[in-house]
Amino acid sequence: MTVPQGPGPAAHRHSIATVALGGTLGEKLAAAAAAGFDGIELFEPDLIAAPLKPQEVRRRLEELGLTLELYQPMRDIEAVRPEQFRRSLRRVRSKLDLMLQLGAPILLVCSNVSGDALEDDDLAAEQLAAVADEAEARGLKVAYEALAWGTQVNDYSRAWSIVERAGHPALGVCLDSFHILARGSSLDEIAVIPPDKLFMLQLADAPRVRMDELQWSRHLRCFPGQGGFDLASFTGRVLDAGYSGPLSLEIFNDVFRQADPFRTAVDGRRSLLWLEEGISRLEAEAPDSTPARTPARRATSPAMRSPDLRGFAFAELYTPATAARHLELLLTGLGFERTGLHRTKPVSLWEAGGARIVVNGAHRAAVPPAQLTLTAIGLEVGDVGFLARRAEALGIPRVPKHHNWDEADLPSIAAPDGTEILLCRPGGHDGYWLSDFDPSVSRPLFQPKTRLTGIDHVALGQPLNAFHEAALFYRSLLWLEPLQTQELTSPHGLIRSQAFVRDLTAGEAVRLVLNVPALGDSVRPGSDPSQHLAIHSSDIVASARAMTAQGLGILPIPGNYYDDLMVRFDLDMASLETCRRYSILYDEDAAGHAFRHFYIASPQSRVLFEIVERGPGYEGYGAGNAVTRMNAQEHG
Amino acid sequence: MTVPQGPGPAAHRHSIATVALGGTLGEKLAAAAAAGFDGIELFEPDLIAAPLKPQEVRRRLEELGLTLELYQPMRDIEAVRPEQFRRSLRRVRSKLDLMLQLGAPILLVCSNVSGDALEDDDLAAEQLAAVADEAEARGLKVAYEALAWGTQVNDYSRAWSIVERAGHPALGVCLDSFHILARGSSLDEIAVIPPDKLFMLQLADAPRVRMDELQWSRHLRCFPGQGGFDLASFTGRVLDAGYSGPLSLEIFNDVFRQADPFRTAVDGRRSLLWLEEGISRLEAEAPDSTPARTPARRATSPAMRSPDLRGFAFAELYTPATAARHLELLLTGLGFERTGLHRTKPVSLWEAGGARIVVNGAHRAAVPPAQLTLTAIGLEVGDVGFLARRAEALGIPRVPKHHNWDEADLPSIAAPDGTEILLCRPGGHDGYWLSDFDPSVSRPLFQPKTRLTGIDHVALGQPLNAFHEAALFYRSLLWLEPLQTQELTSPHGLIRSQAFVRDLTAGEAVRLVLNVPALGDSVRPGSDPSQHLAIHSSDIVASARAMTAQGLGILPIPGNYYDDLMVRFDLDMASLETCRRYSILYDEDAAGHAFRHFYIASPQSRVLFEIVERGPGYEGYGAGNAVTRMNAQEHG
Repeated sequence: MTVPQGPGPAAHRHSIATVALGGTLGEKLAAAAAAGFDGIELFEPDLIAAPLKPQEVRRRLEELGLTLELYQPMRDIEAVRPEQFRRSLRRVRSKLDLMLQLGAPILLVCSNVSGDALEDDDLAAEQLAAVADEAEARGLKVAYEALAWGTQVNDYSRAWSIVERAGHPALGVCLDSFHILARGSSLDEIAVIPPDKLFMLQLADAPRVRMDELQWSRHLRCFPGQGGFDLASFTGRVLDAGYSGPLSLEIFNDVFRQADPFRTAVDGRRSLLWLEEGISRLEAEAPDSTPARTPARRATSPAMRSPDLRGFAFAELYTPATAARHLELLLTGLGFERTGLHRTKPVSLWEAGGARIVVNGAHRAAVPPAQLTLTAIGLEVGDVGFLARRAEALGIPRVPKHHNWDEADLPSIAAPDGTEILLCRPGGHDGYWLSDFDPSVSRPLFQPKTRLTGIDHVALGQPLNAFHEAALFYRSLLWLEPLQTQELTSPHGLIRSQAFVRDLTAGEAVRLVLNVPALGDSVRPGSDPSQHLAIHSSDIVASARAMTAQGLGILPIPGNYYDDLMVRFDLDMASLETCRRYSILYDEDAAGHAFRHFYIASPQSRVLFEIVERGPGYEGYGAGNAVTRMNAQEHG
Repeated sequence: MTVPQGPGPAAHRHSIATVALGGTLGEKLAAAAAAGFDGIELFEPDLIAAPLKPQEVRRRLEELGLTLELYQPMRDIEAVRPEQFRRSLRRVRSKLDLMLQLGAPILLVCSNVSGDALEDDDLAAEQLAAVADEAEARGLKVAYEALAWGTQVNDYSRAWSIVERAGHPALGVCLDSFHILARGSSLDEIAVIPPDKLFMLQLADAPRVRMDELQWSRHLRCFPGQGGFDLASFTGRVLDAGYSGPLSLEIFNDVFRQADPFRTAVDGRRSLLWLEEGISRLEAEAPDSTPARTPARRATSPAMRSPDLRGFAFAELYTPATAARHLELLLTGLGFERTGLHRTKPVSLWEAGGARIVVNGAHRAAVPPAQLTLTAIGLEVGDVGFLARRAEALGIPRVPKHHNWDEADLPSIAAPDGTEILLCRPGGHDGYWLSDFDPSVSRPLFQPKTRLTGIDHVALGQPLNAFHEAALFYRSLLWLEPLQTQELTSPHGLIRSQAFVRDLTAGEAVRLVLNVPALGDSVRPGSDPSQHLAIHSSDIVASARAMTAQGLGILPIPGNYYDDLMVRFDLDMASLETCRRYSILYDEDAAGHAFRHFYIASPQSRVLFEIVERGPGYEGYGAGNAVTRMNAQEHG
């Protein structure tokens, strides 16, 4: 996997806590280095369980070119009775001596979460100062952090007031985005903290859910860009306050814990590059408010330009030879006609209105899929070279492709689930991808009028381990924006569904939906086809009529659905009966914008074709109909 | 799977909501019937998505012998502005007409959760009465239920006060154990509600976690006995109040949604049998307070007697022929000697102190495991016949076993993960299992003194889909009591670990630990051995010394662990150095009770041997050492 190498000069070091990665300590360190991190935070249980002696860890870090930024965590130290503090101090001394062997400059102290923590900030300050004395005597420092569930101290401004009260040169604060943003604390107090007291900045995103902060923090943290927090604003505030230490990822996530640490680390590094870009974008949007300070590292040109998406160019389907004829009939029934054959490859082009599908008889895998599979999404982009370089800078792997000298070069990058994203120049440019196709093919005598106009969206089933990575991939590379997550109950289990959208001019948009089984791989096999290709129609009833006339089977929707529809929405009887007749599903948002869609019955296929008519203003995907549709697929 | 058939007369019908089961509606109904339920609650989305017309659902239910107890849910109906209520009433009428077709007697109305629900109980009562008018006109009823997150009404006593205010004969309340127990509401108000107003009782257990009630309810509900609520007391209160309707399971659980509905339904039915037994036990313990009322159905003799566990009889290991010699050396090194050969089977008996292991060269599976595997746990029980009948009554499948007329009959029942539980008569009884072994085997000249005394515990890795079922299996069949769940971070992901214990006389106990990967099957293969056999030693240092002398490798624990141990506990230097020397792990509970344990290095084996010395009073399993141990296994 390519290591992201940003073009600008180093300003903020990039760091990751060992707890964020799966594997053994040795694997974690190797993964952090391979992904291009400058440093790490060492999580105590990782050290205790490691066969490496402290001096060996230090040597390993040096060999890998990693700085040890911080040793963590020391718990339940402050605001306790004197006899308990004396025992704690013994532990502190031992860990500080250990830090000298490791070469760790800062000890992280978390605010006391035990039931017997005293409500006495003077005592807390005094005891933290005593800990800082011990650290200072060894040339080390102590960073105090407010946990969101601290018994007395659960807010960063209270932590700072205690540190200020202690007035000890070796004592400062650690700010952690999770604890601050999860509680919705005001960010205004950050500017009050002097730069030389901002010892550490820990970054984590998280989905916006309502749950106990401890559980939320321990299981659902994720990398910046993978959750719902505004980390660019937060981090900008901390940098504005003069913080000059590392940007350090401290993530507790159940999926990351079981994932390949090398892959997770690359993903984490990408999240920091994306975050720095976001900070720069904020600055660019509000130049007046930007004080002089160290720039975020890679806030340089390639990052600051929009990817300039123009829309879907095509969807590429791989078909095994045995299914090729079936696909031709299906596409013809949908109203597609074969408009070109690739000049050198076993590839044909099919078009219907503005919708284009490329059918490929070859596959790059040694063992190609046995079923029809959506293998690639072609996107039209204004500057292909720029976006390819941007992918490289974000550590996104390029798929090697052969093309002849006189053929279009479509740079291909691999999404986390293996789907290829092909970058296509828009029409009128040199190297236009359509020029590779020979239009002299025989066309059918009769072309059904199915009123298709273009690709509406593509939905891709994701393995659990790839979802977070995929979310950040599409967000960072293509500036797609995440919408609210939906939970869909399939007969085989719960599916989480999240749409990513980039609105384009003229009402068009690039829309992508990622579906992930809530409990990983355990969904019964043979369940929901994991890929949907949704094509837009200008008149869905006409589409349904024409496709039915062509002999295509529309996925039958039960009558109960329409009986319920009648009482849910104010549909006139005629519309309702038309929907019922053609198994068209209906949805409507709160503002009354409508969405109509139907599916082509395709048992045994991995790709489900969907025809949609998206009323102006409707931004969803008919999630309320998913249960009915998924059950209908079961019934065949 | 055997259908539980309780011996007593029917008193309370058993019901399950369709939402509790995975699959399509047809599968859900068939599963409920096959498991022996009397009725179901129909969850509206299940009907809407089904190809069966309402009359067909009714016919299907009749064919299956199932009563339709309730149609659910109607939401956000009450305490709204008049124009909104008029629209709602149109929906209500349509659904009541539908219920007539279905043959559903009661409509469930959940308390309003929308932001615009008005704080006006008179209005709520008035509007609910209007709904009840519509129901009454059709011979139907309405049950009003307080959701824990209702905007205005989130408590059952408030719901009852509104129903009381409405004073409508067709309006009553539905009590749901989750909403009441999750909020910790007082149960005293239940007795206030007249019996003829208690329309429905929905039962769900849940783990005791601190989280948002909606998320908790939607994802983590489970069957009675699988969580942390005291459902026996709760249900007893409702029965005492004169409730005579069905006991109905309404569970929303992510694991159940993706599981085999037939298996889930049997598990659910078992939970009700267990619950009724629990209610009877409570009554038996406090006979004075039991008023006259309909008895819980299966509160008859087999349920009321203790399983009379006497302890572990043995652990049975299957070894493929290729690993047999290795196992012999291992057992010999552990201090076991072969004390008997089975008279007719390829089975040998090994003993060390009171610890017994049966080694079996045959396996009942068509394709036996390739590795050493723990296949069965032998338990000594006072009355084998009783426990075998009890298993049958609980719907637990029996494993067919061949035994000759002169051999012991050890009834074998299958735990959810496939492990066999063999029921053994204690020594001195007819059919004592040890009499099947011929003691005339050659013994080794030298027998190492490893001080083993018996089996301490067995830990079994569970697939995610089997965990809830396994918890209830051990709890209901053997009266094992669950301890607090632990979260263990392995290098391959998070593992949830829960111990189940039954204390016996004389300080002995049957202890079992179930480990389940937090995210299902996604843990990388080749991770933590999924079965531990922990054997107790009277002197763990002597055990370690003797086993080392025998050439066994103890799993090496890194020095960092002991450096940390030194500052965590007040261990004297000599003890600490002894632990370090022999890689003995140490734990201590808050009261100072100690636990020492070590593991035999056994890469590539599915079974991990552990030697433990459990200090008096220590009730844990050294969970704090699990991270270090699991990392040590990685390092080999």
